This record gives sequence, structure tokens and C-alpha cells, in this order.
Amino acid sequence: MEPKHPFLRACLRLPVERTPIWIMRQAGRYLPEYRASRGEAGDFLSLCRNTPLATEVTMQPLRRFNLDAAILFSDILVVPEAMGVPLRFATGEGPILEPPIRSADDVKRLRRIEPEKDLDYVMNAVGSIREALDDKVPLIGFSGSPWTLATYMIEGGSSKTFPNIKGMLYDQPTLLDTILDRLVEAVADYLNAQIDHGAQAVQIFDTWGGALSPKAYRAFSLEPMRRIVEKLKPTGPDGQRVPVILFSKGCGGMLEHLVASGCDVVGLDWTINIGEARKRANGAVALQGNMDPAVLYASPDRIREEARTLLEAYGPHPGHIFNLGHGISPDMNPDHVAALVDAVHSESARLHGNGSS
Amino acid sequence: MEPKHPFLRACLRLPVERTPIWIMRQAGRYLPEYRASRGEAGDFLSLCRNTPLATEVTMQPLRRFNLDAAILFSDILVVPEAMGVPLRFATGEGPILEPPIRSADDVKRLRRIEPEKDLDYVMNAVGSIREALDDKVPLIGFSGSPWTLATYMIEGGSSKTFPNIKGMLYDQPTLLDTILDRLVEAVADYLNAQIDHGAQAVQIFDTWGGALSPKAYRAFSLEPMRRIVEKLKPTGPDGQRVPVILFSKGCGGMLEHLVASGCDVVGLDWTINIGEARKRANGAVALQGNMDPAVLYASPDRIREEARTLLEAYGPHPGHIFNLGHGISPDMNPDHVAALVDAVHSESARLHGNGSS
Repeated sequence: MEPKHPFLRACLRLPVERTPIWIMRQAGRYLPEYRASRGEAGDFLSLCRNTPLATEVTMQPLRRFNLDAAILFSDILVVPEAMGVPLRFATGEGPILEPPIRSADDVKRLRRIEPEKDLDYVMNAVGSIREALDDKVPLIGFSGSPWTLATYMIEGGSSKTFPNIKGMLYDQPTLLDTILDRLVEAVADYLNAQIDHGAQAVQIFDTWGGALSPKAYRAFSLEPMRRIVEKLKPTGPDGQRVPVILFSKGCGGMLEHLVASGCDVVGLDWTINIGEARKRANGAVALQGNMDPAVLYASPDRIREEARTLLEAYGPHPGHIFNLGHGISPDMNPDHVAALVDAVHSESARLHGNGSS
Repeated sequence: MEPKHPFLRACLRLPVERTPIWIMRQAGRYLPEYRASRGEAGDFLSLCRNTPLATEVTMQPLRRFNLDAAILFSDILVVPEAMGVPLRFATGEGPILEPPIRSADDVKRLRRIEPEKDLDYVMNAVGSIREALDDKVPLIGFSGSPWTLATYMIEGGSSKTFPNIKGMLYDQPTLLDTILDRLVEAVADYLNAQIDHGAQAVQIFDTWGGALSPKAYRAFSLEPMRRIVEKLKPTGPDGQRVPVILFSKGCGGMLEHLVASGCDVVGLDWTINIGEARKRANGAVALQGNMDPAVLYASPDRIREEARTLLEAYGPHPGHIFNLGHGISPDMNPDHVAALVDAVHSESARLHGNGSS
């Protein structure tokens, strides 16, 4: 049974009348209504845990823009928290996970998650958002990649140079493997639960894969993702295929390896030409991306021009989901997002032979 | 006349008995003696401007480690400052360049530099360091790339998302080109003056080239560097060739374009396999790099193992200068640097058929 939604069709490389678009971090601080909801919730984690408010902020960008998919509003760090690593957000400091996981003894503190129980608020949000969407566009669920989640758990928060996890990678690779194994299990269980509750596609965010050498990337970032892809349910409760998107930032050089992972879609950042990436992917996966988020700082006319150039670089082939190459900046003008969504739809309709504009 | 120093020989792809090594930011905060000199100078810019102290900190790592090159101690931002953009370093905030350059009117404030006059303290340092080195190892001069310097001048300091310069890139590319033209002239004059005063090789640091899409990288980062390479004096006052090294962080995908720039050496970060890079470079340039700086967090045994793997990946070909893929971290243990330098020398001697260890 072929899906009807352009986003899901493009993920499966089926023909579409126009290229679908969604935007990483589309529910976010650049929207005044998001800032109001966040103010209402108090702090960021309370917003994630509040079903009506998490539903509301997920829906906000869809009311403004003609986007082709919604993405669950949540945070990648709810998984380490559910595994037993305390999480808080300190003002101006980003996330703090204390005490961090740095030894075999620390690993004993990690528990196997039961997503329905430990992350019930996420499952409630998935169900509630599906209801609010009323099948107008599909819902994307997501998780951080094991490597990316491990960086936070082992460093105890954000890092620029990753001294602890990289020290472990080079000196105690077996210990790191143990932690990644636990994360593979947790992320697979978590995404499968999201699928059970109605997520129609899932994306794995590998934000920090680009910090690794090629060999370390394959062993510690890509291989755990590949094992998750293997464990995921191929279809949702409605019998529809649930495509899997892998997004490894800064890993254009690893494209052939990502393509071979078993995923349906590879997300690209903007440092690679999408036309060349399409040739290298050789029709084996769909591609998502990959406009420089900073193009949105330019005027609506230039935004349209850049969108057209990117669509033409991919060409009139199936399997393109338009997106930015990274999350939208909090200081972005929402009107520029409207210009982008409109440009992608009208320019791609022309490209696919269906447009008049 | 062939140079005798292994570093210069490797830059020109001449045979060497062992692979030369230097380390980006080798004169830096990870050394207690550096921190003492910095304390003596007061602030960072005073350290750059003080000839005896700039000489002292340049020499410090050479006293500890058997490094094959010295690099001038200075900062890339002295060029924008000399062009008329006020520079200060605020505690914990990084560099501040105020008021920034954002309009055609602002560009009028930029003046053509006279390196001998405006940057006399750099030229004094070059001469003084050459004297202190006594021809034991060669001295590398350096500059930031026009694109990288422009990011600071236009953003007014460091940035993560580059809203101002990227807005200009997409909306007013002609204005950005004007600024980059001025920087091409300034950087070429500056590096030629360093060569006149005794720099035996020069490196252009393109720290932020990796923030650009491939098309924008070629137009706004690589092309200005190519024009500088064209303008540089091919030989120093002693008649020796002065090799040019281009280091564009995060630009492994652009390797073929970098190779075609006319430079002698391409510096690589650690996200590319140096063996594959060598094949892609096809003998047209030497390669510098590219160990993950985080390997130095590991034990001396693992450091040796990683150094050997990297040397073997490059193979027994001429034209490899060992380095980290980025500057050394301030929290690094100096003993681990000693282990690396020793490993590179002994392992590469074996590889080149000259070793016993």
C-alpha cells in the first residue's frame, strides 16, 4: 500500500508532484508563539513533559507554513535521563548530566528503559499530536544516535573537544562499546514505542558524528545506528512502512557508508552538493536536505533563488525531501521561512512538470 | 638548491629519512612555561607585541620536544586590527572587533596595511625567532585566510552561525567580494613581509571555510586564497623556496579544489583518511596532518599505535608532514606530546627504511 503523503512518498523514492519540505527545529525559539508556550511551561523539560503544550508547539509551525511533516517536540536527552543519568538545563550553560558515566562501575547505574513507563510523556505526546494532525501531514518521531547521546552522558554535558569520551574511545574501546550497546537497545526500544504510538517515520540525529575520524565514525557512530535500523519495526500499526532517516552532521565523506546502513533516507548538511551526493548514493536511498540554514538570513528573492538552485542540483528524480542542513537558528525571521516553503513548493512543482508558477 | 630541513623537504615532496612533525598551537596554554610568559606579558595581545616574550614562547615547545619546525607566535586578528578594525580580547568572551564592517561605508574605514610599519612587532618577532632558532629547524610564518578574517571583521567577533557575513554573502556578494579583495592584498603583503624577514614557509589558516556550502567555499574562501598564493614570493632572501600550506578545516570534500590552488601543501583535519587523501591528491601536493587531537588524551602506548596507523596509511611516499588535524587542546598533558613526537620519528624511520626501533 503506497502512502499518500508526499513526505512519506519521497522517503520511499516514490514519485511526487512537488518536493516535500520540513525544517529541523521547526518548532522552536524563532517563533514568538513558541516562546510564549515555553514561558507558560516554565523550563524546557517541563515543556517536553506537558502533553498539551508539547502538542501545541509541534503544531505551531504547521499553522504558519505549509510544511509537509510535523516532528515530535522533545529532546534527545530524555533517553539518558530515563536510563538513570540525572539531567538538568542550567541557564546559559546548556544541558548538565551529573554524575557522568565514565567507568565500568558507572555503567551499572544505567537501567534498561521501559519506554511506555519511563517515557510515557513522549508516548502521550505522539498520540496527542497524531490526533491534532488529523492525518493532514505525517508525524516524524526521533532519537539521538547512540554516539551522540554517549557524548553527553560521558562528558556530563556539551563539549567542544570531547576529552572524556575520546580518551575512552582510544584507551578503553570495550567500555565505550558496552555503553553504546546499552544505547542501541534503549534507542531501538524507544523508537519502536514511538512507532507503536503513531510515529510515521523516525529520524536519528547524529549531531556529533562529524567529530570522529573515518575509522572511529564507522565503528562508534555508524555501526550502532546500523544495528538500530535492523531492530526497528518496518511498519506502523496501520500497516504503512515507517521510513528511517539517518542524519550525521559533518559526515558527507561517509555518504557511501551511510547509504549501506539499511536506512531509507540520508540527511545531509550543507557542506556537500546534493547533486553529487545523489550520484554517489546511486538511487539506493532518498536524500534529505540540504540548504545552508544561513540562506534564511538573506532576502526572500535570494532564498527562492537558492532553493531553486538546490532543487535543480538534485534534479527531477524521486527521493528528495527538502530541509535545511541543520536546525533553524533562533534569531531567524519567520517570514523568511514562509518564503522558503513557498519557493520549494512552487519551484519543485515546475521541476516535476506540474507547476504553473 | 634543495633544502636540508626535513620539514621543508617534505613540503616540496623530497625524500626524508623520517617524517617531520610540528603541532598546530604547539606554543600554547598546555605548557606551564607558556602560561608563565603570558602572565608576565599581562594580556594575550601584549604577549604577541613583546618581541622577547613572543620569541620565548615560540621556542618553549622546541626545548621540550624534538619538533621539526617552529611557528611564529602571533594571532590571525592582528591583520584586521592593522587595517583599522579595533580589536580586544574580553575575558571568557573571545575576540571583539568593534565597530564591525557591515556596509560600503564601513569598508571606507579599512586602510591598506604597511606590514613593516603597522605590524613591525611581527616582523621583529620573525627576525628574533630566526636568530634564536640558529637554523636548527625552519620557521613557519602564517596568516588567517581572507574568508576567516572577514568572519571576525563582519560578525564583530567569533560566531557559530555567521548571520551577518552569510547574509552579506547571499544578499550583497559584491560587497563581500570588495572586503575579501582588500584582505587578499593585506594578507599577501603581510606574508611577503614575513618571508622578507625570514619566514621559511607560510601557512594560511582557513578556520571557518568548513562553514560554507561547496559553491560558496570555492568563491569566497578558496579563490581569495588562490590569489594570495599567486602573489607570494616563491623564494626567501636566502634563495630557498618558501612552501605555502593551505589549511581549510572541515573541507575534506574540497580536496581536489585545494590541490589545484597552486599551494605546495594541503593541511587536513582528522575527518578524512590520509591514505585516501593522498590518492586523491595524486602526487600534486604534500599533505600535512591529520591525527585527531583527542588521541593525545589517550595513553602513550595508544598514541604510538595511532601514529603508526596514520603513517602507514600515508605510506612510504614523500610529501607527508605529521601534525594534528587541529590545534592542540589547552588541557593536554605535555608528556603525551613527547610520546607522539618520539613515536612519529621512530615509526616513520622504520617506514622509510632507516629505523631500528
